[in-house]
Amino acid sequence: MTLTAPTAAIGLDTAAEVAAQLRVDSVRSSTSAGSGHPTSGMSAADLFAVLVTRHLRYDWDDPRSPANDHLILSKGHASPLLYALFKAVGVISDDELMHGYRRLGQRLQGHPTPALPWVDVATGSLGQGLPDGVGIALAGKYLDKLPYRVWVLCGDSELAEGSIWEALDKASYYRLANLVTLVDVNRLGQRGPTDLGWDVDAYARRAEAFGARALVVDGHDLAAVDDAMAAAQDPADERPTVILARTVKGRGFREVEDSNDWHGKPFPPDMAERAVRELGGERHLTVRGPRPTAAPTDGSRPTSDVAARPVTTEPTEPPTPARYDLGAAVPTRKAYGDALVVLGARNPRVVALDGEVSNSTYAFEFARAHPDRYFEMFIAEQQMVAAATGLAVRGYRPFASTFAAFLTRAYDFIRMGAVSGVDLCLVGSHAGVEIGPDGPSQMGLEDLAMMRAVHGSTVLYPSDATSTVALTDAMATLPGISYLRTTRGKYPVLYADGESFPVGGCKVLRSSDEDAVTLIGAGVTLHACLAAADALAGEGIRARVIDCYSVKPIDDATIADAAAATGRIVVAEDHHPEGGLGSAVKDSLIAGGRATPSLVHLAVRGMPGSGSSKELLAWAGIDADHIASAARQLVRG
Amino acid sequence: MTLTAPTAAIGLDTAAEVAAQLRVDSVRSSTSAGSGHPTSGMSAADLFAVLVTRHLRYDWDDPRSPANDHLILSKGHASPLLYALFKAVGVISDDELMHGYRRLGQRLQGHPTPALPWVDVATGSLGQGLPDGVGIALAGKYLDKLPYRVWVLCGDSELAEGSIWEALDKASYYRLANLVTLVDVNRLGQRGPTDLGWDVDAYARRAEAFGARALVVDGHDLAAVDDAMAAAQDPADERPTVILARTVKGRGFREVEDSNDWHGKPFPPDMAERAVRELGGERHLTVRGPRPTAAPTDGSRPTSDVAARPVTTEPTEPPTPARYDLGAAVPTRKAYGDALVVLGARNPRVVALDGEVSNSTYAFEFARAHPDRYFEMFIAEQQMVAAATGLAVRGYRPFASTFAAFLTRAYDFIRMGAVSGVDLCLVGSHAGVEIGPDGPSQMGLEDLAMMRAVHGSTVLYPSDATSTVALTDAMATLPGISYLRTTRGKYPVLYADGESFPVGGCKVLRSSDEDAVTLIGAGVTLHACLAAADALAGEGIRARVIDCYSVKPIDDATIADAAAATGRIVVAEDHHPEGGLGSAVKDSLIAGGRATPSLVHLAVRGMPGSGSSKELLAWAGIDADHIASAARQLVRG
Repeated sequence: MTLTAPTAAIGLDTAAEVAAQLRVDSVRSSTSAGSGHPTSGMSAADLFAVLVTRHLRYDWDDPRSPANDHLILSKGHASPLLYALFKAVGVISDDELMHGYRRLGQRLQGHPTPALPWVDVATGSLGQGLPDGVGIALAGKYLDKLPYRVWVLCGDSELAEGSIWEALDKASYYRLANLVTLVDVNRLGQRGPTDLGWDVDAYARRAEAFGARALVVDGHDLAAVDDAMAAAQDPADERPTVILARTVKGRGFREVEDSNDWHGKPFPPDMAERAVRELGGERHLTVRGPRPTAAPTDGSRPTSDVAARPVTTEPTEPPTPARYDLGAAVPTRKAYGDALVVLGARNPRVVALDGEVSNSTYAFEFARAHPDRYFEMFIAEQQMVAAATGLAVRGYRPFASTFAAFLTRAYDFIRMGAVSGVDLCLVGSHAGVEIGPDGPSQMGLEDLAMMRAVHGSTVLYPSDATSTVALTDAMATLPGISYLRTTRGKYPVLYADGESFPVGGCKVLRSSDEDAVTLIGAGVTLHACLAAADALAGEGIRARVIDCYSVKPIDDATIADAAAATGRIVVAEDHHPEGGLGSAVKDSLIAGGRATPSLVHLAVRGMPGSGSSKELLAWAGIDADHIASAARQLVRG
Repeated sequence: MTLTAPTAAIGLDTAAEVAAQLRVDSVRSSTSAGSGHPTSGMSAADLFAVLVTRHLRYDWDDPRSPANDHLILSKGHASPLLYALFKAVGVISDDELMHGYRRLGQRLQGHPTPALPWVDVATGSLGQGLPDGVGIALAGKYLDKLPYRVWVLCGDSELAEGSIWEALDKASYYRLANLVTLVDVNRLGQRGPTDLGWDVDAYARRAEAFGARALVVDGHDLAAVDDAMAAAQDPADERPTVILARTVKGRGFREVEDSNDWHGKPFPPDMAERAVRELGGERHLTVRGPRPTAAPTDGSRPTSDVAARPVTTEPTEPPTPARYDLGAAVPTRKAYGDALVVLGARNPRVVALDGEVSNSTYAFEFARAHPDRYFEMFIAEQQMVAAATGLAVRGYRPFASTFAAFLTRAYDFIRMGAVSGVDLCLVGSHAGVEIGPDGPSQMGLEDLAMMRAVHGSTVLYPSDATSTVALTDAMATLPGISYLRTTRGKYPVLYADGESFPVGGCKVLRSSDEDAVTLIGAGVTLHACLAAADALAGEGIRARVIDCYSVKPIDDATIADAAAATGRIVVAEDHHPEGGLGSAVKDSLIAGGRATPSLVHLAVRGMPGSGSSKELLAWAGIDADHIASAARQLVRG
């Protein structure tokens, strides 16, 4: 049987059948795979059945349609339910459900990823789907200006993650009435009851206090769920909606209902058979609910507005790109702000976010030039990266900035962004001990290691304003997660306007046939390398100097050449010794497979305190004197 | 003038003088340093003045007294205020305030750290002081059973961090009436207004919804502040208290009051002079409020209970340590649970926390054996690490566990734990693609890089049950941040009971004079290395096999010996290629300074999906076949 309802005409009786099918298929797919979470889907099956038959406006034949609603399974472990829904709308086959789930090379992974065209973001690290949804809703309201809604299914356990509250805070601040959160309050987590159990009113008070409209329902009363979903579209209310649905884990199969023993376990075949029988047997219904071109169910949304529409912010006359005089003292963070303004003028898809430090990162320059495309995330770095992820889902190119140190707050979100395959440009300012008096809490000393370890990432660390502009431009078209590390202080411009800085390249700033040692730096240490080379030259030691502005990928060939030519390398970085620039250089040298040079690695090996920038660079042993001294010892033996 | 009040006899008129002094000194110290945040302290000076004169029970001559209240400056940038308070109670001199602030090698750092004996935890990454305070309050109520209170001063900006709400959620769940949060609602962040501005009632609704008692006051009305602080000690109320104080940034100096232009800026000398004049001039009052041995101000706390008292949980008869039969298949995560139970029996200071996955990490074994010392943190990894930090402040030895992947959620807290100098034992299970069908969201593939980059950290990665037990034991006395990586699946026990596993060591499991290649693994890849060695032996290639269970520090000598003896190394790890085991081996080889061997580094270079453990290890190229093949190519050239 196939039902298609262009105008939400599918009745609740059919929704009930769909719900039974979603449960049956959750059981069948997980049992077939021998792994998975059937009971976590069974609690939410009624929510999904009502949603997909009567409220989700989605053209299943065109998942890329910009008018489609978005559906995010924040409780990603309930993937059997989501995949059952995909079968119910006819986009995957029963065969794929039964033989593709959780298998190698298949797209029906243990937790959903965008390997499936109907999945926007990878979930499975809890508390991320809703924050991602905030980003999509921001795009819908402020950039696309399309009436699509964002529906997010959360588990109750994940409401313990602070990121959920960062998300609701921003959703209410930005008046995201287009965001509807469904919470499947089945009271049981992985190992036992949640801290609030079935106290749906307590959740409702929290959601209301955070500026959302909370609706409490019995999650197995289809009419009540339907009413709540309809109410979520009240055009008079600018608040995001949170529907708190009291549900029963394993609902529909009495052997496991509300049981603490069946989290994350597929049923053995005989048990699955009993479950399917109790649930009314296999069904192979195909149903499609409202399409985005149809009139909205409540009639309150303008129907003329649902077609795909380009972003309304048109490219403006690009301002003249900043040019910097050679030798002028300019912080790279300032050059980043300058570059972003120009980039934003050239490319209307570029958007920017910041964690309440835009006057430090210089993102404020973009905010001033392109206020419609700037989103202040306040001090909520997780939400900042998640919002960037959601904006990227809608085809925008987000640049998200804060202090390098504080990007550590969002590492799980960055990691998951890589799993989602989104293109994010992250910018961390105030790198290393160079920042001086503020002390170690503000010093990014782990960021290079953290960002290099992200799958498919690009890590850039410019030393001057000219290269910063070029690399900021380059980031705008890089795939995956890219990271730009900027520095607090002012350092001389080294490169003339127009110089090119390919990602994966480096610059050899000093070179001769008599070079006895190679000095490799990036950011502030590049300037120290140059000063060290000058000092060494005065002693008759010629040093090659490499600006390793592209830390990942790194310029293997140039580093290998320098190693071969000089046989000695000093690499200096304003970062802890593990995983950063020095590590990248060593990886490169060893991967080369040839004889490796003598190498001294200068890095921040102690725990810094306050001090001036100059004092701390000396204290850490990464200033010109220490670099020269290390080089001298290598050369003189 | 010196006033000491054993029984909170200091009047509000004196508190007002203290407040003026705190403001003056905030101005003076930051101007003297040429850096700092005077205005962010001026808004909270009245709160601190009332607190220190009348409510904070603290023996300033004995900061290590277990009976002292705790005071945490969560808004760490207001350090001039805290240091002014330390001067006001006579523990630092005016000279130190004027010449030590933000200078190299001095203890009055830009943001407070425990370099000062009155500071429990480093702050400066916002939204961490309150979560840390929850840990201290947990210790007070459940372990120390002492009536000390924990007072935390938060800024309003940092209430945007989700971690604040994780903290209040846990504080109310654990009924931490001993925790009082003061929020300095001065409405201005670094770059502009906060998202809620002066809407203190909105904050109050949020705090109440999260289970706290919220008290709203004018933060410059000393009597009102005093009343609220007294009310916070109501013995009939088990809720944590949040005092929301409406304040004015820069209060007391009209030129900067409520101004958006003076965040994080010291006043120039002439301006500082005007400020000091307007604030009534320099003062050098020394005041001390109630001591912990004195009767509490409200008389409601039992006075017999205030002396230092050891933890009440006595060592029990240690259960027989688990012994594992050689060759038996045991997951290392299970061995971790077994070890922790025994450790907990031996050492009553050992406590455990978990992020709602204790049945996966096996922390549940500790929870069952020592329920009084187990704290369920639900799905709130930031709070889990922060609570561990607070427990460590009180002298406990916390073991905090979750999936390795989800420790990325807490990276900022781990990093700050290192700045605080606390001893934390972190345990990440479900490392790498080995976990199989759950997919990449659940796979720890960045954790080794992340943990190695933490200052002073120890990183351990055992391959079998026996070594896991030994390393878990070792962790209990390691300084700083230590990390144990465990594996999901069952692998054979390799070592007999009683074998020793020193941190910084490794085990050579296969060795001969004819070894042509060295295979280095840890965790699951060590088993693959052993299988590869067997396969190679069948072809006449002898391979040395090293179990590199201590990734940081690494056994430089043994690795150098193996490199020298065999000239060829294959290192295989279930982790992304950057910053993990391979990186540690390469760092070690290059630091050795001798000719480096030919090296092949096998790691997870693609983005994994679902599959079986065996399939995914093969897909990633880190199983026995791939290791043997890499070794074969190295040997045969």
